[in-house]
Amino acid sequence: MNNFADQLEQKIRETGNPSVMGLDPVLSYIPESILSACRKDFADPEAASGAALYEFNRRLIGSVAGLVPAVKPQLAYYEEYGPAGLAALRKTIQYAHQCGLLVIADGKRNDIGSTAQAYADAWLGQTRLVGGTEAPMFGADALTVNAWLGLDGIRPFFDLCRDQGKGVYILAHTSNPSAGDLQDLVLADGRPLYEALAEKIAVWGEELVGSCGYSSVGAVVGATWPQQATRLRELMPRALILVPGYGAQGATADDAACSFGNNGGGAIVNASRSLMLAWKKHQMDHEDFERAARLEAMRMKEDLNRALVKSGKKMI
Amino acid sequence: MNNFADQLEQKIRETGNPSVMGLDPVLSYIPESILSACRKDFADPEAASGAALYEFNRRLIGSVAGLVPAVKPQLAYYEEYGPAGLAALRKTIQYAHQCGLLVIADGKRNDIGSTAQAYADAWLGQTRLVGGTEAPMFGADALTVNAWLGLDGIRPFFDLCRDQGKGVYILAHTSNPSAGDLQDLVLADGRPLYEALAEKIAVWGEELVGSCGYSSVGAVVGATWPQQATRLRELMPRALILVPGYGAQGATADDAACSFGNNGGGAIVNASRSLMLAWKKHQMDHEDFERAARLEAMRMKEDLNRALVKSGKKMI
Repeated sequence: MNNFADQLEQKIRETGNPSVMGLDPVLSYIPESILSACRKDFADPEAASGAALYEFNRRLIGSVAGLVPAVKPQLAYYEEYGPAGLAALRKTIQYAHQCGLLVIADGKRNDIGSTAQAYADAWLGQTRLVGGTEAPMFGADALTVNAWLGLDGIRPFFDLCRDQGKGVYILAHTSNPSAGDLQDLVLADGRPLYEALAEKIAVWGEELVGSCGYSSVGAVVGATWPQQATRLRELMPRALILVPGYGAQGATADDAACSFGNNGGGAIVNASRSLMLAWKKHQMDHEDFERAARLEAMRMKEDLNRALVKSGKKMI
Repeated sequence: MNNFADQLEQKIRETGNPSVMGLDPVLSYIPESILSACRKDFADPEAASGAALYEFNRRLIGSVAGLVPAVKPQLAYYEEYGPAGLAALRKTIQYAHQCGLLVIADGKRNDIGSTAQAYADAWLGQTRLVGGTEAPMFGADALTVNAWLGLDGIRPFFDLCRDQGKGVYILAHTSNPSAGDLQDLVLADGRPLYEALAEKIAVWGEELVGSCGYSSVGAVVGATWPQQATRLRELMPRALILVPGYGAQGATADDAACSFGNNGGGAIVNASRSLMLAWKKHQMDHEDFERAARLEAMRMKEDLNRALVKSGKKMI
């Protein structure tokens, strides 16, 4: 099955859960038992930090394997720990794959064509190394990208979607408070800018629609702006939508439901802090973070399915 | 001197050269002597590749030290080689600093506020590691960013500009053929979108104007669109402008001159491939790449100064 949308939709059906766990590790989220073990094992603070990030992720992934279809590491939180952080990210991606989870690398990458090709190779493709061997460097299944540079800056990603079954999510309308600074500006023809972009995304994705009816060229649409999300789903009926903003950023499951297709498919809802820090909400010990994340992931699954039934998009 | 604009303008005065060398290494740009030495020294192809990138950069930097004020590594070309590539990038930044060059990390990073903070810490600030030590991870002097998410996604970078003398370049109008897909869309008030963004950049930068008269909140303006560049300079009279597109992408020194301030300052022009591959243009041996890069950097310096005099922006 060489189409990302088909792979993702099948995983969502298998788990009955249209959500994705964000892996945005910060040292203060990691319990003391892991931190002190890494301090003991590694004299170098960078190596110890990388090991702690990986161990935290490994246990989070183990706790939700079989329950969520995918994870979404946010690349900034690995770059923050330098080369050791990126090595931890690579191991995290490999472990998620071993556990049967898809991996969406959240990097919002963007550049001119030749450079976008290098990003595409780094995150979704292969690199030719000294000596001539080719190997995947990070090996994610999909990547978030920013379309500010226009089509030639994202075409290299489309090539990997077509040839290697990868996916791409283009930032259409983000979840943050100042999303509208540029995205909501009104064009001469009366449309807001994000609608003009959405129409382009729909066209760009036409050639990559899988047998599930959705395209591997997806979009990021924040749940914090439900009115815009409803309109964007109309304009991009076949786009896979990645929905941030649920939970810690304030959006509800009903808000998130606006981004799903009429068949209840085509979207996944991200939760990062609300899963990584679920032990706080459930008043559990920090060392119980895995059990808390699993409990919260189950609660979120029910919450999303309830909202989808309520919206009329999903049959009971 | 704790203001990036002041630091850069002084380096430009010292070298008499408003240019920046792009460091976008690709294995095929690296001569066989370096590649074979790295193959011999490192059995692991990733380690060998990282070592080759660093050695290539080290020799390029050595060849232009004292002649150019800054280098601009393009992050995609290091991510392409995984954690070993990013380790090579870090060493490259350290070596450039030892040689007295400023470093502009070209990453076009962007995200919501909390994540943008992680990018800012990674590239311009410090990271708190396991055990409590704080250390810079990449330690660049400035970073390119993408403003699609609006002000709250780039404010964390401004904080480091103010508090730690760092700089930021916001993508205003890029150099690639499809730059206009979004950037040139016409707004309801008749302005093209890139002008609306430029007006925001000018306002955002007001608080970070150094004694040189330019702000550490800069903009990226491609030389391939000279008409737009002229208008953008009017709208952002105090922004430091980073000018890509000269040389391999087809823009001339006269095109690039449009982005300079009336005093002949406030801008630097990037050249990547035209310096890294100068041995081809000058019909020299590949092993002579350093001498060729230096020759080409000197030619470019003269070309830019000639164009600035011609434009009336620089006194002879």
